[in-house]
Amino acid sequence: MPNGAYALIRTLVDAGVSTCFTNPGTTELFLVEAMDSVPEMRTVLTLFEGVATGAADGYARMAGAPASTLLHLGPGLGNGLANLHNARRAKVPLVNIVGDHAQDHLRHDPPLRSDIETVARSVSTWVRTSKATSELALDTAEAVRVATGPPAQVATLIVPANLTWEDGAVPSPPQRPSAPCTVPTDVIESVAKRVRAGGPTALLLGGNALQVRSIVVAGRIAAALGARIFAERTAPRIERGAGLPSVERLAYWPELVSAQLEGLQHLMLIDTGAPVSFFAYAGRESSLVPAGCEVHQLSTPTCDVVMILEALAEALNASDSASLQERSAPRRPTGQLTAETVAQAIGATLPEGAIVADEALTSGGALAANTAGRPRHTWLPVAGGALGQGMPAASGAAIACPDRPVIALEGDGAALYSMQSLWTMAREQLNVTVIIFNNRAYRMISTEFTRHGKQIGDKARSVSDLGNPDIDFVALAAGLGVPSGRVDDAGELTNSLERAIAEPGPHLIETIIPAV
Amino acid sequence: MPNGAYALIRTLVDAGVSTCFTNPGTTELFLVEAMDSVPEMRTVLTLFEGVATGAADGYARMAGAPASTLLHLGPGLGNGLANLHNARRAKVPLVNIVGDHAQDHLRHDPPLRSDIETVARSVSTWVRTSKATSELALDTAEAVRVATGPPAQVATLIVPANLTWEDGAVPSPPQRPSAPCTVPTDVIESVAKRVRAGGPTALLLGGNALQVRSIVVAGRIAAALGARIFAERTAPRIERGAGLPSVERLAYWPELVSAQLEGLQHLMLIDTGAPVSFFAYAGRESSLVPAGCEVHQLSTPTCDVVMILEALAEALNASDSASLQERSAPRRPTGQLTAETVAQAIGATLPEGAIVADEALTSGGALAANTAGRPRHTWLPVAGGALGQGMPAASGAAIACPDRPVIALEGDGAALYSMQSLWTMAREQLNVTVIIFNNRAYRMISTEFTRHGKQIGDKARSVSDLGNPDIDFVALAAGLGVPSGRVDDAGELTNSLERAIAEPGPHLIETIIPAV
Repeated sequence: MPNGAYALIRTLVDAGVSTCFTNPGTTELFLVEAMDSVPEMRTVLTLFEGVATGAADGYARMAGAPASTLLHLGPGLGNGLANLHNARRAKVPLVNIVGDHAQDHLRHDPPLRSDIETVARSVSTWVRTSKATSELALDTAEAVRVATGPPAQVATLIVPANLTWEDGAVPSPPQRPSAPCTVPTDVIESVAKRVRAGGPTALLLGGNALQVRSIVVAGRIAAALGARIFAERTAPRIERGAGLPSVERLAYWPELVSAQLEGLQHLMLIDTGAPVSFFAYAGRESSLVPAGCEVHQLSTPTCDVVMILEALAEALNASDSASLQERSAPRRPTGQLTAETVAQAIGATLPEGAIVADEALTSGGALAANTAGRPRHTWLPVAGGALGQGMPAASGAAIACPDRPVIALEGDGAALYSMQSLWTMAREQLNVTVIIFNNRAYRMISTEFTRHGKQIGDKARSVSDLGNPDIDFVALAAGLGVPSGRVDDAGELTNSLERAIAEPGPHLIETIIPAV
Repeated sequence: MPNGAYALIRTLVDAGVSTCFTNPGTTELFLVEAMDSVPEMRTVLTLFEGVATGAADGYARMAGAPASTLLHLGPGLGNGLANLHNARRAKVPLVNIVGDHAQDHLRHDPPLRSDIETVARSVSTWVRTSKATSELALDTAEAVRVATGPPAQVATLIVPANLTWEDGAVPSPPQRPSAPCTVPTDVIESVAKRVRAGGPTALLLGGNALQVRSIVVAGRIAAALGARIFAERTAPRIERGAGLPSVERLAYWPELVSAQLEGLQHLMLIDTGAPVSFFAYAGRESSLVPAGCEVHQLSTPTCDVVMILEALAEALNASDSASLQERSAPRRPTGQLTAETVAQAIGATLPEGAIVADEALTSGGALAANTAGRPRHTWLPVAGGALGQGMPAASGAAIACPDRPVIALEGDGAALYSMQSLWTMAREQLNVTVIIFNNRAYRMISTEFTRHGKQIGDKARSVSDLGNPDIDFVALAAGLGVPSGRVDDAGELTNSLERAIAEPGPHLIETIIPAV
């Protein structure tokens, strides 16, 4: 009988989990060996665990199936925690395999002993430490079933090293996924009745409700009611572009969201909660639901969003075709690089089928308008708000969709949390074009000081300033094996973007833009 | 009355915590503002939280007093977790301040909500979420008291944002530290009696027992008994060099440790546990205590190690002077760069008072012998075994000891977990010389494959290979603002090292060495 490591990897692959993002160590040695015995498993090395977990998230968002990670003990899991927070919030299917010391070794309290379960619990709805070699494959199959959902979620299996080297394990067959719940027909009919009574109405789509089938049905509902469609800001994946119903993504700043939602009398929620300010501000409401607006929660965690939308459309006799986003493109920009002209260059060159990982933050305000009318493409926001996700997610998406161009839009501050991603892009020759919006600042911090009407003191200025010394992303990319260049004006950027997108493999383009 | 943020920062400073390593966000805005109102607080920006926590650890090891970190929510704490694991294992005093959402905001389940307490608990013996503005200063003072010990430890205070902006707080005076326990005289006398009966004997010093006062007393004990003195491999700080009693650091590989300890009949433990293999291996004992050797635990978590050693010396009438490490230096090396010649170059140039953060791992085997006879210096090992600590710890040590040269010895793999450290070294103009032992491999993994008698398959080779593409550390350092260069032979390295150590500010020197 094979050893536990083989049974684990074989079980993963048999259950459809065939990509593993890893940064392994001694406790994972036999699992690495087993990957060589299971040719269907693709093994992707990362230099930092946050790249592994973010890539697994990006992969799963695009593949619609779980990716796996293989991490080394508690500290390895810790390094991956920020992007696992994002995956958890995004309800992305993800299976973490975390190696631990051999069972007998733990009582000697070796230096790398830590409480892995506690770390895992903060980001995983399912955590299990496997207890016996004979149970390891079954535990693995259950981790995949739980991760797959519904609802999709992060599952973490902790594997003592001796279970991987001991013989006596048998691969476990895939487990049948849970059935989605039945549609709450009564709720839907009562909501349909309420919104038909009139008044400005909107659908707010989040979670899985921004894929094409959902958006198309939402478009019919919107046409029937004269309603608008909004996308949750932190949805994991938004399909958009010419030919799809128009969907407006909620803004980041609460006052802009309030302006977007002003006057609504009905807000229907599909796979999301009521809109809330990202952060609290003294003396302001956290909720961004307009006064007097009725909020209708239409989904439950386990319901299929397309079925809910179809049921609502039927209840509303929504047979009209939706108003569709028209095709348009910004003019090719010239002149000075600014957040606006960089967004124009992206809009002018965005190819059909592109996947855009968006971590441009304060520099990204002009992106939505400049890209809305481009050919169909996919937007991957930072789902949970934890930074350092853009380049890892872009890497995972590029592995899931090798034939689609991937573009990572990165604020300078955000890029620096997980810049080790660049090396994995080079190693795997991923078709990712990274654009750095380098305003040489943690612009969020200085903006918040201004919004609070505060004077910025020396230390506050110091912690929001990423100059002194200036960071050279062209050198960083070169150091990690990615062809890179800095552009001096918007015309040059547009040309460079076209070339980078057309050429296989990764590229990085640095734009220096004003912080204001 | 001042706001909570001011009271918190003022309380830290009044309790002697006057350096804060940070990567803040919106929830920490008022704390950043408060730092501008408390001029005694030094605020050091890092680009990644693992740099902040590792620097706080390095600072505390050298200052002997707690440093603080200021981190942004659960993901920020998560990014700092690996180095907090090291600090926890090292029993280093450290106060984490972690911002959370405003209390009322949490019920809206904003994207960045997470279970911060659970994350914190995995690395902190004391975790508290402050409940009221009026209690914030007292909570802060208590965090400092707990962190200070004895035993020193990691304390994490979670601060809801509204407590920082609300008025009504008063700074809290420092709390009296707990008294160390009394020396267990009966234990010491009975151990003294046992070891006097004869047989090969050794002292194993760990934790705080490797500072000068402890080592000197241990030297007298060793002289009285004809005993040897070992240092725990993962001790947080080891004072060494010519003129101090000779202390031999335990090796990494278990078979080498067994050779070091072979034949011992008595092993006395001071501020450490019985020696254990770093990792378990099938069919091998985890414990590295030789068969038939009696282990004597002499310390308790709260006891002052110098008092224990003095009591033992007295019980043994240990008045002899110890045999002292003689002064010596390797010849200045020439020729090919190898792990050995790089160690010789370091030994040949190591200046008096140097602080050496050692994360050279598999390439570091020749360091101990080549540096033992150099003038007095301080060695900072990776205390908990989690990688990515060397450059952050070097940064913190350089801030604690601005007049001492700091040298960070980095394996290429280890350096890549927290290379953002380089930027903080440049920003703060720290006197740190980083030497990269670049063998273009996770050498630990391929070595373990060989030790297990395994064939290395394609995927195993792939995850232990850091070539394809090669990483250019000179470019990475330049990108982060640190002067850098690659040397081609051992003579050039020796000259470059001397120049780098003599010149103020940070430098990075890359050596390409064979992986075998």
